[in-house]
Parts: sequence; C-alpha cells; structure tokens
Amino acid sequence: MNIEKCNAERLWDSIMEIGKIGHAEVKNSKVGGCHRLALTDKDQQARDLFISWAQEIGCHLRIDPVGNLFLRREGKDNNLLPVTTGSHLDTQPTGGKFDGIYGCLAGLEVLRCLDEQNIQTLRPIEVVVWTNEEGSRFKPAMLGSGAYAGVFKLEGVLSTKDVNGISFGEELERLGYQDKMTEGFSKCYQYYELHIEQGPVLEALDIDLGIVTGVLGMCWYDVEVIGTSCHAGPSPMHLRNDALVGVANMVTQLTEIAANNGVDSRCTIGELNVLNASTNVSPGHVTFSLDLRESSASQLHELQTKAFEALHRIAYQHNLEITIKESWSLPPCPFDEKCLSNIKQACESVYPEIKAHSLVSGAGHDAVYVSRVAPTAMIFVPSEKGLSHNECEYTSPEQLEKGCNVLLNTILRAANS
Amino acid sequence: MNIEKCNAERLWDSIMEIGKIGHAEVKNSKVGGCHRLALTDKDQQARDLFISWAQEIGCHLRIDPVGNLFLRREGKDNNLLPVTTGSHLDTQPTGGKFDGIYGCLAGLEVLRCLDEQNIQTLRPIEVVVWTNEEGSRFKPAMLGSGAYAGVFKLEGVLSTKDVNGISFGEELERLGYQDKMTEGFSKCYQYYELHIEQGPVLEALDIDLGIVTGVLGMCWYDVEVIGTSCHAGPSPMHLRNDALVGVANMVTQLTEIAANNGVDSRCTIGELNVLNASTNVSPGHVTFSLDLRESSASQLHELQTKAFEALHRIAYQHNLEITIKESWSLPPCPFDEKCLSNIKQACESVYPEIKAHSLVSGAGHDAVYVSRVAPTAMIFVPSEKGLSHNECEYTSPEQLEKGCNVLLNTILRAANS
Repeated sequence: MNIEKCNAERLWDSIMEIGKIGHAEVKNSKVGGCHRLALTDKDQQARDLFISWAQEIGCHLRIDPVGNLFLRREGKDNNLLPVTTGSHLDTQPTGGKFDGIYGCLAGLEVLRCLDEQNIQTLRPIEVVVWTNEEGSRFKPAMLGSGAYAGVFKLEGVLSTKDVNGISFGEELERLGYQDKMTEGFSKCYQYYELHIEQGPVLEALDIDLGIVTGVLGMCWYDVEVIGTSCHAGPSPMHLRNDALVGVANMVTQLTEIAANNGVDSRCTIGELNVLNASTNVSPGHVTFSLDLRESSASQLHELQTKAFEALHRIAYQHNLEITIKESWSLPPCPFDEKCLSNIKQACESVYPEIKAHSLVSGAGHDAVYVSRVAPTAMIFVPSEKGLSHNECEYTSPEQLEKGCNVLLNTILRAANS
Repeated sequence: MNIEKCNAERLWDSIMEIGKIGHAEVKNSKVGGCHRLALTDKDQQARDLFISWAQEIGCHLRIDPVGNLFLRREGKDNNLLPVTTGSHLDTQPTGGKFDGIYGCLAGLEVLRCLDEQNIQTLRPIEVVVWTNEEGSRFKPAMLGSGAYAGVFKLEGVLSTKDVNGISFGEELERLGYQDKMTEGFSKCYQYYELHIEQGPVLEALDIDLGIVTGVLGMCWYDVEVIGTSCHAGPSPMHLRNDALVGVANMVTQLTEIAANNGVDSRCTIGELNVLNASTNVSPGHVTFSLDLRESSASQLHELQTKAFEALHRIAYQHNLEITIKESWSLPPCPFDEKCLSNIKQACESVYPEIKAHSLVSGAGHDAVYVSRVAPTAMIFVPSEKGLSHNECEYTSPEQLEKGCNVLLNTILRAANS
C-alpha cells in the first residue's frame, strides 16, 4: 500500500479559517480562543462553511434527526457500509480552536487528498460533525453521538432545553436543513476519531502520536461527612470533632491510592464545601465530590473498593459520620482491536521512526457512544501543557500534520478492506 | 470571713424570666434559645427589666456614653472605686439563654443577697451590662467594653452601622436613657466576670468551677494556594499540580502542630474554598482561613513560626504558590494575679471539696478589654457539650449556683479590701 500524505498547510489554514467564527483574542494564547456553543448562529456558520468545503470536492450532505452532519464520498461499492471519521465543531463557552474541530477538519483533509489524487476506495467514506458534543449549551454532553448510538431517545434529545428555555429541536428547525434530513440513523463499518489529547501524557513523553486503546470508566460520588462544629477558641484540639480535618485525611489518602494503583487510575476531589463556615468555627459538616476513573470494569471496581474502605476507615478513626452517594457513572469503553491494529499499522508505515504511545483517554468523546454500535478507535496528538477547554489550547501544525497522515492511511486501510 | 450563699432558685428564675424576651422554642433544647440582638426593642425590654430589678433593691442607675448600664450599690466609703461585675444581655441571632446573661443576673443575685442580709461592704459594688458584646448586629464584637477601655473611640462606636444602615448612636437615642447618661467613662477597682465556659474542658474533667487565668491571643490569616487546574480524566495523578491535595496536607499538619504543642494551642481552618470548582476538574486554586491561638505572646509567636514553616514547606513540596495575609489579631490577655487569688480563695472557702480547674479562655470576653484599664479575672462554669452561640446552650441550675456563690464571696473579699 502506498503511503499518502496530507496537505499540512491546507489543514492548518482550514482550522484557522473556521476558528475565525467565534474567535476570541486572548493574551498568552498563540492562536486565540473560540466561543461557539452548539446550534447557535456561530455554530451554524461554521457548519455551513464546513459543508461548502466538502461539497466543493463533490461530497454529498446527509443530516440525521439530531442534526449530525454526514459528508459522504462514494466508493467503488456503495452498498458497503462507509468508513466514518469526524468529531464536533461546537466549543466550550471559553474554548479553543482544536478540541473537536481538528477531527472534523482532518477528516475533510483526508477527503481532499483522495479527491486531489483521484484515489478511489472500495467503501464510501463519510466525515461526520456530531451535534452538541461539549454539553455546554444542552446537557448532557455528546447528545448527537448518543442519539446516533441509541443511548438517548430522539424525543428526549429534541426536547432538551438550554438555560433560556430554547429546545434542541427548535434550534434544529431554525438551522433549516430540513430537506437533507433523514428519518432514522445510519450505520457505519468502522469509526475513527482523531483528537487532541486534552491531557499532559504525550507532551511529557515527547511523543507526537497516541493510539487510544479505550476511554476510562468513571463513577461520580457525593460524599457527606458530619462531625460536630465548635468554637475555635474554647475547644482544645483533643476535644474536637472536626469534619474538615477528617476530610483532609481522606483527600490525601484517596489521591495516594490512585497514584499507587497504576497509570490509568484517577481520583479527583474537585468540589469541597464547608457548611456554615466561619473563620472561628471548627467545621462540623463538610461535603465533597469524588470522581474515580479506571480503564476496565474490574479495575474500576477494585479502585472503588479501596476508596470506600479508606473513607469508612478514616471516618471511623475521626469519629465522623459519612454517607457516600453515587451521582453518575459511565462504564469503561475499550476500543476495537481491529481498528487499533489498523491505526498501529498506519503509524508504523507513515512514521517508522516514531513509536506511537498507547494510552487510554480519561475524557469522554463521541467515539465512546459510537463504539457501542460500530467498531471504533481513536488517535491522539499532544496538547501543549495538557490544556483543553481553555482559550490557550494549542497543538503545533507539525503535530496536527502527523495525526492527519496517520488518519489518512488508517482510513485507506479500512476503506479498502 | 463568713461564707455567704446565693438564692439559687431566684437566680435560675431570673435567668428564665429574662430569657422569655426573645425566647425561641427549639427541639432538643432544654430551655429554648434566645434571639435578642443588641439595641433592638427586645434588648431594651431585657435591659429595662434588669434595671427595674436592681432598682427594687435600691440600686442607682448610671449609663455611660455607649449605653453600658451600671447598677450601683453604695458601700461604706463611696469615695473608693467600686468593685464591678457583670457581662452582657445581647445574644447571637440564634443564641442561648446563658452566654452573657448569666454574668449579669449572677451580679444582680450578689446584690440581692447583700441587700437581703443587710451586708454593708467597704467599697461600692456595681453590676454592669455591656452593650453589643456579641457583635452580631454592630461589628466588631465587644464595642461597649472596648469603648469603656479606650480601645475604640466614642465617635467611631456611635457611627457604627448595622446591615440596615442604622447607627449605634441612633439606636442609643431611641432607647431614651439620655437623662441617666454620663459624659465620660467611669473607673473601677477590680472587675470580675462570671461566664459559661462555651467550651468542653470543664465538662470533660467533670469539674464545675473554672478559674480563668487569661484569654488566648489570636491571629487570623487568609491563605491562598495556587497550582494548576486540569481535567480529571486525561491527567494522570503524577502529572497533576492539585492545589487541594496540597491544602489537605496543610490542614493535617497544621492541626497536628497545634495538637502536639501544648494544651492552649489552637489551630482552626474554618473556611475553605475551591475556586472554579467542578467535579471533573483537579483544583488549581484554593483559599482558606487560618485561626491560631496561644496563651502568651511568645508561645503565639512560636506557633505562628511553626505553622508558617509547615505551610511554605508543603507548598514547596507540592510545587504550589502560597500567599499568607494576616487579617486580624488580638494579643494574649493574662488576668490579674490578685484578682485570681481572690477567686481561688473564694472557691476554697465555699467549695473546699472542689479543686477548681485553672484554664485559659479561648473566646474573647468583655473582660479582655476591661483588663486593659482595671485588674480583672473571670470565673467559668461548664457548658453542656461545650455548646454556645447555639440554641441548645445549657448549664444546670446547680452549676450556675456554684459559680454565683464563688462570685458572691469573691466580690465580698474584693469589696472589703
């Protein structure tokens, strides 16, 4: 198989061009931020520009019932299911220019290369733009890919409202793509998603290519710890029943458990509230959030067991009441072996000098839901300083080029099989 | 010297009677709570009732420029400075029936006993009701005794406003005691204050009498800790720069330092805020309050040094920026040896079977400011479960009786010297 290369300059220019829609000038940001919430006027402008670029090279537009856009390049046998790639064009309220956008524009760049070089694939290839991945406007996140995968019911998604009471369905109607809209959801042969890492691992290893073997499973808990509050002055240390002192011990031990548990273990205490807090009151009531993540169901279960054991032991040692309530969970999502193998072979053929790093994704992606209905895998490129969901988000043109070349050759392998 | 005894039933009844003004029915509270903010209608009712009781036994009312009430019983030599006792009648917004009130009513009970038994003392005796001790309505606390001691300027106190913009001076005028008001502040020979402990020490020791040797000095700090926030998923534990994990270590070590430092050391982290907190974000910015207390200036300095050393060391170990700003301080206040000796002798004569426990007060009292202008000491009785500033505040009639008997015999010693 020949090794194909993308046009790195065109890829970069397209990302920058679409980034002008919602551009935010930001100090210390190399290319500025991007503010483009799902299904707003700005999101529509970006989608329309994307559609026009794809149509220029002969792609056909299809829109499914939740506004996911599919730009299709026909293959030799159009009865075969398409190989699909893509991501999302919406951003966080103060987001960057790469999260999601890179995956869509790299998909377009793949089609442009094939078009330019008159390469015909056995299967059709589709580039998808999923609707409302970020979940900043319509909650929860990944509504578009979730509906596609049957995780969310269509009626539920369409009636989801933003903070102003405007529904997802109303906004889809306003966008006016009705004539291209299908009744049901389509299928695909395999799904590949190229994304920035949004974390610090590849940068720390100084490796520009990551093969994402799956997405961490996660469990969220609300923890409540009750002791007895008392006046800071009259109460000697040994007669106190301070909930915050107990919770401090919990934070320390929980994060140590995750640190000692293996590379894919995560434990985060992101929110912590002292109730009826006052400078001169030893706290009697503290609540905190607990976010546990692991790469397999058994390892997640093991991490939960260790964490709960520690929480109950510390509560007992400090004479504190504790209640732990699960608030949300998502099972681990291992990606498809065949897809991973395709990516690995593409990496080795295009960049024999780079040993691509296999890693799990800690964050959710559209690929998580798509993997429930089609063989799926992801490719990562580094994020500078691990930043994402941040106006300073940045990945260099050279790194974007490498990821796109791997995607191109992965899709060629898949589309000819 | 004869041993005098108070009328315990009358004392209890008076406390309960005055507690009806602002009474709050509270579940699990033995006698209910009390809501009586300084210089409100309810406070005036309580003060007027108190004045009427004192006047019934021939006491003379004098009011100083900040509304502190002095009820005077003449002695044999009225050119001598009076022995003064008392406390305050205002409460916290959701306070109890004993904090402050007990000291005033026990002072009145002392005068009632002397009147009943026709005992004439060498010096006059005055019972004082300090204005706005709690600081719940007009901040800071102890405005009345602070003005008396010259800590606060008169104009400043009078112009202090509550949250509704009503000034201390306007409220004094509304109370209408103008004709009894003096131009300046009076003096006293010695000042004794009887108070509930507001802490758990005496109850834990099962001792009903405490001799308060002084009040802890205290320093308040605002501490800010900055790391780098990151997404909880993509960031492995070893690549994080979590401010909360560092702060948890600080809370643990600071409270251990105080616990190992001696009985009078106090370290309290009462407020803790995670900025831009989110369940799936490893915190990059945390602030907390730090309240340090010790019994002498040198010990407080030593505690501060240890605490700061720990804070900077932990910040360095966790690669965190730290800033520590002092927000308030009050020097330690050792009480007068002669006054303490008077209390001790009174204890031994009235209750030879009880070994009164010497302790420091961790909370501020009017006696702290008065001690700057007159020899001063305090007597404590236990607080059930150490509760105070709480609607469940409680001290038994028997314990209140013991404290009052010690106060009576202490004042007799002082007033005849």
